[in-house]
Amino acid sequence: MRDVPKPECGSADVLIKVRHAGVCGTDLHIAEWDAWAQGRIKPPLVLGHEFAGEIVEVGAAVTEFKTGELVTAEGHIICGHCLQCRTGNGHICQKTRIIGVDRAGAFAEFIAMPATNVMRLDGIPTEIGAIMDPMGNAFHTVLTAEIPGSVVLIQGCGPIGCFAVGIAAAAGARAVIAVDVNPKRLALATKMGATRALRPGAEVEAAVMELSEGNGADVVCEMSGAPAALHEAFRLGRSGARIQLLGLPSAAVPVDFATEVIFKGLTVYGVIGRKMYETWHQMQRFLRSGRFDPTPVITHRFKLERIDDVLRAIKSGDAGKVIMEIGT
Amino acid sequence: MRDVPKPECGSADVLIKVRHAGVCGTDLHIAEWDAWAQGRIKPPLVLGHEFAGEIVEVGAAVTEFKTGELVTAEGHIICGHCLQCRTGNGHICQKTRIIGVDRAGAFAEFIAMPATNVMRLDGIPTEIGAIMDPMGNAFHTVLTAEIPGSVVLIQGCGPIGCFAVGIAAAAGARAVIAVDVNPKRLALATKMGATRALRPGAEVEAAVMELSEGNGADVVCEMSGAPAALHEAFRLGRSGARIQLLGLPSAAVPVDFATEVIFKGLTVYGVIGRKMYETWHQMQRFLRSGRFDPTPVITHRFKLERIDDVLRAIKSGDAGKVIMEIGT
Amino acid sequence: MRDVPKPECGSADVLIKVRHAGVCGTDLHIAEWDAWAQGRIKPPLVLGHEFAGEIVEVGAAVTEFKTGELVTAEGHIICGHCLQCRTGNGHICQKTRIIGVDRAGAFAEFIAMPATNVMRLDGIPTEIGAIMDPMGNAFHTVLTAEIPGSVVLIQGCGPIGCFAVGIAAAAGARAVIAVDVNPKRLALATKMGATRALRPGAEVEAAVMELSEGNGADVVCEMSGAPAALHEAFRLGRSGARIQLLGLPSAAVPVDFATEVIFKGLTVYGVIGRKMYETWHQMQRFLRSGRFDPTPVITHRFKLERIDDVLRAIKSGDAGKVIMEIGT
Amino acid sequence: MRDVPKPECGSADVLIKVRHAGVCGTDLHIAEWDAWAQGRIKPPLVLGHEFAGEIVEVGAAVTEFKTGELVTAEGHIICGHCLQCRTGNGHICQKTRIIGVDRAGAFAEFIAMPATNVMRLDGIPTEIGAIMDPMGNAFHTVLTAEIPGSVVLIQGCGPIGCFAVGIAAAAGARAVIAVDVNPKRLALATKMGATRALRPGAEVEAAVMELSEGNGADVVCEMSGAPAALHEAFRLGRSGARIQLLGLPSAAVPVDFATEVIFKGLTVYGVIGRKMYETWHQMQRFLRSGRFDPTPVITHRFKLERIDDVLRAIKSGDAGKVIMEIGT
Repeated sequence: MRDVPKPECGSADVLIKVRHAGVCGTDLHIAEWDAWAQGRIKPPLVLGHEFAGEIVEVGAAVTEFKTGELVTAEGHIICGHCLQCRTGNGHICQKTRIIGVDRAGAFAEFIAMPATNVMRLDGIPTEIGAIMDPMGNAFHTVLTAEIPGSVVLIQGCGPIGCFAVGIAAAAGARAVIAVDVNPKRLALATKMGATRALRPGAEVEAAVMELSEGNGADVVCEMSGAPAALHEAFRLGRSGARIQLLGLPSAAVPVDFATEVIFKGLTVYGVIGRKMYETWHQMQRFLRSGRFDPTPVITHRFKLERIDDVLRAIKSGDAGKVIMEIGT
Repeated sequence: MRDVPKPECGSADVLIKVRHAGVCGTDLHIAEWDAWAQGRIKPPLVLGHEFAGEIVEVGAAVTEFKTGELVTAEGHIICGHCLQCRTGNGHICQKTRIIGVDRAGAFAEFIAMPATNVMRLDGIPTEIGAIMDPMGNAFHTVLTAEIPGSVVLIQGCGPIGCFAVGIAAAAGARAVIAVDVNPKRLALATKMGATRALRPGAEVEAAVMELSEGNGADVVCEMSGAPAALHEAFRLGRSGARIQLLGLPSAAVPVDFATEVIFKGLTVYGVIGRKMYETWHQMQRFLRSGRFDPTPVITHRFKLERIDDVLRAIKSGDAGKVIMEIGT
Repeated sequence: MRDVPKPECGSADVLIKVRHAGVCGTDLHIAEWDAWAQGRIKPPLVLGHEFAGEIVEVGAAVTEFKTGELVTAEGHIICGHCLQCRTGNGHICQKTRIIGVDRAGAFAEFIAMPATNVMRLDGIPTEIGAIMDPMGNAFHTVLTAEIPGSVVLIQGCGPIGCFAVGIAAAAGARAVIAVDVNPKRLALATKMGATRALRPGAEVEAAVMELSEGNGADVVCEMSGAPAALHEAFRLGRSGARIQLLGLPSAAVPVDFATEVIFKGLTVYGVIGRKMYETWHQMQRFLRSGRFDPTPVITHRFKLERIDDVLRAIKSGDAGKVIMEIGT
Repeated sequence: MRDVPKPECGSADVLIKVRHAGVCGTDLHIAEWDAWAQGRIKPPLVLGHEFAGEIVEVGAAVTEFKTGELVTAEGHIICGHCLQCRTGNGHICQKTRIIGVDRAGAFAEFIAMPATNVMRLDGIPTEIGAIMDPMGNAFHTVLTAEIPGSVVLIQGCGPIGCFAVGIAAAAGARAVIAVDVNPKRLALATKMGATRALRPGAEVEAAVMELSEGNGADVVCEMSGAPAALHEAFRLGRSGARIQLLGLPSAAVPVDFATEVIFKGLTVYGVIGRKMYETWHQMQRFLRSGRFDPTPVITHRFKLERIDDVLRAIKSGDAGKVIMEIGT
C-alpha cells in the first residue's frame, strides 16, 4: 500500500472513485511475479481491472455521463480504428491495452477511464458491477453458442465457470453438467443451477450421455485450461458440437486433429474478453431479468488493506469470487 | 360419429392407436365449413392433425419402431425430394399434405403414419404428446429469433401464444410482454411466465419501453392475425428488431413499408409449421429439462363423443388447449 | 451558386477539399422542394451527401489522418452511444444526422467531417470514392443475403440496382436477373453482368423459373419501390427466400401476409444505409479485387456550375450515376 | 481385375452402369494396404467412391428416377434417424457407411445405390459428375466460411485444394493465395484462379499481409494435413479468422491453444464429407453458372484396366484429378 497521485481526467475521460474491485487470477500471477508477469508488467503499477464506483469528474468532451453516476467499465482499451474495432469485434483489437496490466488499474481510490469504456449501472449494485468483467467472459463464452435446448458441459468451476453455469441455465439449456476437482466449487456450481456437478471421471461421460440421449454434449465450455480437459471437451462434444475455449493451457497440447476435431465436424471457438458492447448489453439484461443472480459466486469480501488475505483466499482454490471494498 | 375402416399400414408406415388428440382452430373452420374449408377439404374425411398414441402395427420396411411404443407425429407429410426438403426446410415443401386436411386424420381410433413422421415420446405423457404440433409452431416462432436477454413481445394469447410465452421465459428472455383482449387468456399467459400480461393499448407500449430501456422490443411474435396487431408489431419492435409472423390476417393489410419496415431495418420472418426435425428435437429437450411445462395451457378435456362441447369451448374464445380423450 | 463560409474544422474533424460529388435522387427531391423536403430540410443548406476529396486540415484530437490523404466519408453521423451504435448497427441509430440533409453537405469546395466517418481511398480514384455511399447501399442489400450459388432477382436498375447486379455476379450468384422498364438501364445492367435483363412481365417469371430449376429466386433485391414490384418480389421468391427491401414505396401497399409471406416462409429485410463499417470494408475489398468495376454505371460527369444539366439528366430516367467535378 | 456378380438392385435402390470414376488418395491407401486400410477394409471389396453413370434399373419403391438418366451419387450412406441426420447434418452421422470402403464401390461395371443418395446430372458431363464427391469437399470447406470480399489462404493444392481455389475466386474472394511445395500443382492453382500461387515460406506471409492490408487472412482452408501448415493456418489467419480444417495430420500436433487459438479469437471448423444435400445443390448451381469450371483439375484419364498407371500418377504427386473411363 502506497500513496499514488490522483490520476488525471483527460478530456474524453471520466474519473471514478472506486467502491468495489474484483480480484482475478491474473492479479495473483502478478503478485507472484511469474514469468508472464515479468515479461508484461512494468512496475510500479496500480493493479486491478475489475471494479465499480462513482463518477466524480467528467472530461470536457464527455457529454453522456455526469458526476454522481454509479458505473463499471470495460477494462480493455481498444484502438477504435482497426478492422476488428470497426466491425464489432473490438475484443480482438491487436492494440488492446488492459487496465491494471498495461496501464494504471483499479486497486486504488480513483481511476480515470475513457468515457467510451464506461457502463452505467442503473440500479445494479457496485459489488456486482465490480465483477462484470469476468462475468462478461462467461456471457461471451456461453451466449456465442446456441443454448436453448442444448446439453451444456462446463469444465472448470472457478468463478467464471460458476457464472457460466447460471447463464446456461437461465438461457434454457436442456441440462448443465459442471465439472471440477474441488467439492466446494461443485457445491457453488450446484447453487448456480447445475443439473449435475461432478468430479472428472467416468461419471461425467455417463451424465452427458444420459442427458443427451446418447448424443454427447451440444456445447462444451472449457474453462479449466487443463490439457486433459481439452481432450475431454473434444471427446464428450457430440458430432457437430461447439467447443468454447476460455481456459488457457499453460503449454502446448498435442491434439489428434483428424479424430478429435475433423471427423467429428466440431466448431472450436477461442474466447477472449467480452464483445464490445454486445456482451455488456446481454449481461445487463440478464441481471435485470431476475433469471440470473451471480451473488452466490461472491464468497469473500475484504477491505483493500487486507490484500494478503485476498491472495491467500484465491490461492486456496476454494474461493468463488473475491471482492475488495475500497471506497465504501 | 361413424364407423370407418381401420386404415391400412403400408410397408413404410406404422399404425397408431390414438389416445389423445388436440383440437385446433383449423378443425373449427372445417366444422363450420367456411370458404377455406369448402375450397380445400374433400369429404368424407377423418379430421384431426394433433395426436399421440401407441404403435400397434409396424410396416415391413420399418426398422426403427416396434409395437407398444408411445409416439406422436408430425402431421405434415412432405415430398422428401425438393430443394426445401433436401436442405433441412421440409416445413416449406410445396407438396406438403396435411393429415386431417388433405388425407385421413387423427380423430379416430387408428391412424397410419409414415414412420419418418413419427416421434417417440420416451416418457412425455400422451396428453402432452397430442399437442406437440401447435406447441411446435410456438417453438419454431420463438427459437428462430435470438431470445436470451431479449425483450419479447407476444401478441395473441391463444394456446400457441401461451406456449410461446413459456418458451421465451425458459430461454432467458429479459422480459416477456403478452397481449390479448381476453382476460382469461391473459391469466393463462401470466401462469406461463409472462412478465406483463396486458390488453392492447398504451400500456403495452409503456411496458415495452420500460423493460427495454426505451429501445423497443427485440423480438415480436405476432400470433393474433389482427391487422392492427401487425402494425403494432412493426411499431413496437426496436430498430433492427426481428418480427415473427405466425398469425394469419384474413385479408390484405396495407403497410407503409418505408416507415414501418425499411427505415427501421426490421427483419420479418413468416412462420409455417415446424422445422423438420429441428423443432421437434428442441421441443423434446425443453419438455425434458423441466424448464418448460405446457400443462396449464390445457384447459379442457373431453371424450371424442363430446365433439360438440369441444367446438363450443373453442368458439367461446376462453379456452386454452382442448384435448380429446380417444383410446384411453 | 453562392459563396458560403469555409466550414470550421472541429478538434475531432478533418476538413476535406471536395474533388468529386455524386448526385442522388434525394438531391432531386430537395431541388424540386417536394413534401418530404419541405418537412425535413431547413434552408439555406449546402446539399450533397456523396463525395470524395483531399484532406486539407486535421483537427487537434485526430491522430489517424494527415493532410494530403484522399478520402471519402460515410454521410450518416451517428450518436455512438445507443444500443444500435454499440452493437455494430449504427446504420439504424435513431439519432442519425445526414450530411446535405440535416447539416451542411458536399456540393461545395470544402466539407468538415468527423474523423470517425472518414475512409481512406488508398488508390481508389476520387470519382469512384464519390459514389461509395450509394454503392454501399447496394453492397448492404446484396451481401446481407447468401449469394454464392443463388438465383438473384434484382428489381429496378437505377444506379443502385446496377451496382447490385455487379456485386451479385462477383459474389458467385448462379444467375442475376435484372428487371426495369427502361431499355437504357437494362443495357447498363447487362454491362454490369446480369445473366438476363428484362422488362417486367411474364418473361421475368419464365427466366427465374428456368434458372432456378422451377424453385423461384433464392434472393430478391427490391430496389424499385413500385407496389407491383413488391408483390412480384414475394411471388417470385422461392419458399424460404430472402427478400431485401431497399426501394421506398411512396404509399402503403396492401399485402396479403398469409399467402404472400407466411405460407412461403419468407424472410423480409429492410435495408437502410450502410453497415458501419462492415459494408465499407467489403466495398474496398471488392473494388481492390478487380472482380467488381462500377465505372460503367457512371454515365454523366458535369462541372458543379452545370447543376441544371445534372438535374435534367437524373430526371430523364436514362442516367446511371451522375457525377459533379468540383475541385479537380 | 476380376469378375464379380452384378449387384442386386433393392426396392429403394437404383442400379447404375458406371461411365467414369474418380480415383482418390483413399484408394491409394487401400492399394498400398497401409495400417488404416488393414483396420477398416474387409476384402474382397470393389473399391471406388467417386463415379457417374447411367441408371439401368430402378427399384420397385423408387419413383423419382427412371432408366436412362445420367447421375452421380453421394457415397456416404447415412442412417437417416439420428439427431445429425434429422437436423440437416447427415455428413456427421455416426453410422455412415462409405461405398468402396465399407460396402461395394464404383470401380466396376455396375453399382447399386439407395435412390436417396443419387443426384441427377441434368447436363453436367459424367466426367465431371465422377468428381463431384471430392469437389463437394472443397465446396463444403469454402462455402461454410464467409467468402465475398475475404482474403482466402488455401494450403495444399491437390485436387481438392485446386477446386477450392476456383470456388473461392468464383464466390468473390478479395484474393486467393494458394500454397504448395509442388510447382505443377501451383501452376494448376493459378489456372483455377489463384491471385498468388506460392511455395511455403516468407513470401506467403508477405502476400497475405499485402493483400489484407496487414490484417491476415480472413479465411484459411487447411487442405494439406502437414503439421507445419496447421501452425501456419493459425498464425496467418487474422484475429477473428475462420480456419477450415480438411487436411488430416497423420499424428497428434502439439498446439499452444492460448496463443495460437484463444488470444486470436479464432473459429476452427472440422470439415468432413459434404453437407447433405446443401453442398450438392450449391455445386450444381456453380457448375451451371459458368463461373466455375473444374475441368483443368482433371490431368489424367485412363481405362479401368490401366489401374497401375492410375496409381503411379497419383503417387507421383504431380497429378491433379485422375479419372478412370469404365463404361464409356
